[in-house]
Amino acid sequence: MQIIRAVDWSPDGTAVRIIDQRRLPATVVERDLASLDDVCEAIRTLAVRGAPAIGVAGAMGLVVSLERYGTAGVPEFRERLHSFAAQIRATRPTAVNLPWAIDRMLLRSRATDSSPAEVLAILRAEATAIRDEDRAMCDRIGAYGLPLIPDGARVLTHCNAGALATAGIGTALAPIYLAAAAGRRVEVFVDETRPLLQGSRLTSWELTRAAIPATVIADNMAASLMRAGRIDLCIVGADRIARNGDVANKVGTYGVAVLAHHHGIPMYVAAPSSTFDPATPNGDAIEIEQRSADEVRCGFGTLTAAEAAAVHNPAFDVTPAALITAIVSDRGVHRPPYDFASDTMPGAKAVA
Amino acid sequence: MQIIRAVDWSPDGTAVRIIDQRRLPATVVERDLASLDDVCEAIRTLAVRGAPAIGVAGAMGLVVSLERYGTAGVPEFRERLHSFAAQIRATRPTAVNLPWAIDRMLLRSRATDSSPAEVLAILRAEATAIRDEDRAMCDRIGAYGLPLIPDGARVLTHCNAGALATAGIGTALAPIYLAAAAGRRVEVFVDETRPLLQGSRLTSWELTRAAIPATVIADNMAASLMRAGRIDLCIVGADRIARNGDVANKVGTYGVAVLAHHHGIPMYVAAPSSTFDPATPNGDAIEIEQRSADEVRCGFGTLTAAEAAAVHNPAFDVTPAALITAIVSDRGVHRPPYDFASDTMPGAKAVA
Repeated sequence: MQIIRAVDWSPDGTAVRIIDQRRLPATVVERDLASLDDVCEAIRTLAVRGAPAIGVAGAMGLVVSLERYGTAGVPEFRERLHSFAAQIRATRPTAVNLPWAIDRMLLRSRATDSSPAEVLAILRAEATAIRDEDRAMCDRIGAYGLPLIPDGARVLTHCNAGALATAGIGTALAPIYLAAAAGRRVEVFVDETRPLLQGSRLTSWELTRAAIPATVIADNMAASLMRAGRIDLCIVGADRIARNGDVANKVGTYGVAVLAHHHGIPMYVAAPSSTFDPATPNGDAIEIEQRSADEVRCGFGTLTAAEAAAVHNPAFDVTPAALITAIVSDRGVHRPPYDFASDTMPGAKAVA
Repeated sequence: MQIIRAVDWSPDGTAVRIIDQRRLPATVVERDLASLDDVCEAIRTLAVRGAPAIGVAGAMGLVVSLERYGTAGVPEFRERLHSFAAQIRATRPTAVNLPWAIDRMLLRSRATDSSPAEVLAILRAEATAIRDEDRAMCDRIGAYGLPLIPDGARVLTHCNAGALATAGIGTALAPIYLAAAAGRRVEVFVDETRPLLQGSRLTSWELTRAAIPATVIADNMAASLMRAGRIDLCIVGADRIARNGDVANKVGTYGVAVLAHHHGIPMYVAAPSSTFDPATPNGDAIEIEQRSADEVRCGFGTLTAAEAAAVHNPAFDVTPAALITAIVSDRGVHRPPYDFASDTMPGAKAVA
């Protein structure tokens, strides 16, 4: 099975190679980001997106943009390092993985007083480690989630929590990729995910690219498919998971969870354990970003709503833990009652 | 309050005046349909749409297209009458009101053997009666539904069952218009209604035109609004209502009904009694039209899903009667258990 690489080193290592997600699904363009400006522009304009992928791209991008200063003096190199790190971090201020990855790179740089060339080599190794850990995280989510995807499964997903959102095989889609690789027949129904259509533009593209049958539906069609008995399970990603298991994810996830509950269909969430937020007691404490009215009003370049009408456009919603059958992370399959209180998650029952 | 007229005679009566719904919401264009070709093209291309509005436009269009044959001989006039009626009827073969209105016009023409000019006058009076009955139907639905819309109500609707779909003030929107006219504060949340966006394009336009506050949301945002306590009731139209009260309506209606049920929010359906279909025992007997994949895949002129992905695009879904709080028709407010067995509907409880 051919699973795409959303972010990686270019073959000679002088650039960050990404798939330009702004052009999908119409055109597949790989871009090599070889300068600070390239990296910042790509993250800012969503050419590369998905919290894990952005973290990896930021760390690798920091290395690439510093490469020409490997022969500079120590003061200039250090100044560039901190300036570039700040600029990359500022491209998407709300994504959690990006500042995490940049901070990790800076911490690593402080642990040595070697020459700029040697620091660069250390940073390159650290960025590669971040990439590799992200891939390993995806693989573990896939392995833990694999038993949830039986042969013949008809799966509903929402938004894109796939390979395009990570450096590896994705989060929500990881178990699906591994099930297909294991020879199981899997069919995926993909909510188009208005307003930005990450489901139809990205998820349907990466699944069919891997030869997994995908059927795109408008978000409002999932309910009748469930009533007709055509969905066996739902699996989605997560942007943040509160201590009690409430899940913030792309708007529409909560509706899918209510529909799944009504029809007795399992609702799974798959996300890296870095998404667990023990400091947030429950979903009510999660602030929901409101986005531009124009994404709904004229998101396709055409005015599709009355100028005089208001628009409500939250980016995320919160699904209460009671509607979630299980949460799959790189640490295992967690079942209710959820209690992500610490790194060791004593309340979680890892069954796989 | 200014409520638009989707279909009416032009001031001198020589044409059918419509609002061209293909141009909404960006541009408000009234068009006068003065020939058979005008009428057929307008219905076929959805310049005029909504089952009741199409019936009225078809009947009036038949008169307009025959006008120049009022001085012809009887055989030629009769031939044109039947030929034109057949052509208008064929523009939208699945809409029920169009053949009903055309058949009624033909029946009326057969009841007289007067001169072509006299038959034309009779047909004009019949078309006007069809228009007036449609308006009266809307007014009665509005009056029966008015008690369901309290002062301060925050209402969710889906698709367009408004003035643009009828010759009058609409079906689902009729009680809202009358509530606003009675001085009640009403706020309407409008599902954009993918794939064809009748909610954002049409409903938000006609409501704000009547100075009723409307907020457009993507279909997948209704769930979180309900959870936040921001929706007091839902009201939608219907394309067909089975004997047991199961309702076929625009796809997405069933999902709204499940969400409303989960949150304890009333779910109302408003439709003319001509929508009751005693011959259909329940929703399982209603065939659901599948529409073109391109409406979902590239409905905005841009490819928004992978070419290799399949698309599932049903035009309607079925909401079981158990999820419907009440059905408002021009005959009253019907509450469960529904039994639309005959014209007198003995099982229905008309409470208003």
